[in-house]
Amino acid sequence: MKLYNYWRSSSSWRVRIALSFKGLPYTYQPVHLLKGEQFDPLFQSVSPMGMVPLLEWEEEGKIQRLSQSLAIISYLESKFPDPPLFPGDPLDRGRAVQIAESINSGIQPFINRATLAFLKTHSSLEESEWTRHWLGLGMTSLEKMVQVCSGLYCVGDRISLADVCLIPQIYGAKRFGAWNPASFPTLARVEANCEKLGAFRAAHADAQPDAESKPARV
Amino acid sequence: MKLYNYWRSSSSWRVRIALSFKGLPYTYQPVHLLKGEQFDPLFQSVSPMGMVPLLEWEEEGKIQRLSQSLAIISYLESKFPDPPLFPGDPLDRGRAVQIAESINSGIQPFINRATLAFLKTHSSLEESEWTRHWLGLGMTSLEKMVQVCSGLYCVGDRISLADVCLIPQIYGAKRFGAWNPASFPTLARVEANCEKLGAFRAAHADAQPDAESKPARV
Repeated sequence: MKLYNYWRSSSSWRVRIALSFKGLPYTYQPVHLLKGEQFDPLFQSVSPMGMVPLLEWEEEGKIQRLSQSLAIISYLESKFPDPPLFPGDPLDRGRAVQIAESINSGIQPFINRATLAFLKTHSSLEESEWTRHWLGLGMTSLEKMVQVCSGLYCVGDRISLADVCLIPQIYGAKRFGAWNPASFPTLARVEANCEKLGAFRAAHADAQPDAESKPARV
Repeated sequence: MKLYNYWRSSSSWRVRIALSFKGLPYTYQPVHLLKGEQFDPLFQSVSPMGMVPLLEWEEEGKIQRLSQSLAIISYLESKFPDPPLFPGDPLDRGRAVQIAESINSGIQPFINRATLAFLKTHSSLEESEWTRHWLGLGMTSLEKMVQVCSGLYCVGDRISLADVCLIPQIYGAKRFGAWNPASFPTLARVEANCEKLGAFRAAHADAQPDAESKPARV
């Protein structure tokens, strides 16, 4: 499998966590979003939507492709169910998806590159006013939601889709100055627990081959 | 089960289709978004996020609640798997979720009430410039995606999550003047096929008790 992705794209990061968590090897194909490589004819020929992440693999003698992080993760879950990322219990499953969707549709669309670029060229709205509004609402909702069902992780004591989406979102909140562990104690606790796991460390933005501001070596 | 919802909210509509498709009875609890009933203390006490749709039911002697349309549908699928809304084949399942997420995270966040209200009070951006940009990109992507895998419906010849999300989205595109069946022939064909089904007719915005502009009787 080949993953077209970008180190700091939070939706790319979700797929990297899922692949690592399930122990699936993949080829890392960087697409530099800030340099506009998503508009490159070569990339457009495989991804008409010009979007990362994009998973590509061969199946039944044909090249198959999927975009949308949660779609890729649903495919992976269905094809490689063990270890699972979707809880088996219906209510827990609903809760995991609720958290994932609150991030995927409730926060991320507002702070992604394309949205901020459109606002910059078409309005005089301050980027920080916009991002802090949506991150403030979204992270506050997340804290309340996760409080209801968390254990070691977002939903009880097993890693789920919710954690896969939460960790890159917290990184995004930090980047935009909208993170404060005292305001989001449950999220901060889950983050600390996820950071102990190899799959999460391997998938971290700063650990990718195209990462630009790698932490200084100690 | 009780569904807090609003006739014209496309995410409420998705849940109504899923409930009808699975033959599950429910109590319809309208929340009038334009009158601000989502901010009513009574609604806020059950939904701290103040969002519709919200599903409420009793389980293990406790009142349970879920928000986020795709989370509610995931719960329903897991609890009442027959008839299914998620394809069993991994690739088809990925494709159905890809279409659903392209709507849920790629279009709907940009045109929902809260987003447009924020832009109106915080920027001079024309609403139509904003909505047509995102609807134009989004609907064009959808047409390409659905072309790859459609049969009678979005993914082959069986109703899936993708159709559940597509039908309310087309209604939204019409409302915002971004629909043209000649530009989206595959989507228009799937729409016509879905409209023949009782579950889709029962869930239609205009058929709900709180609908305001009911079609004139012939």
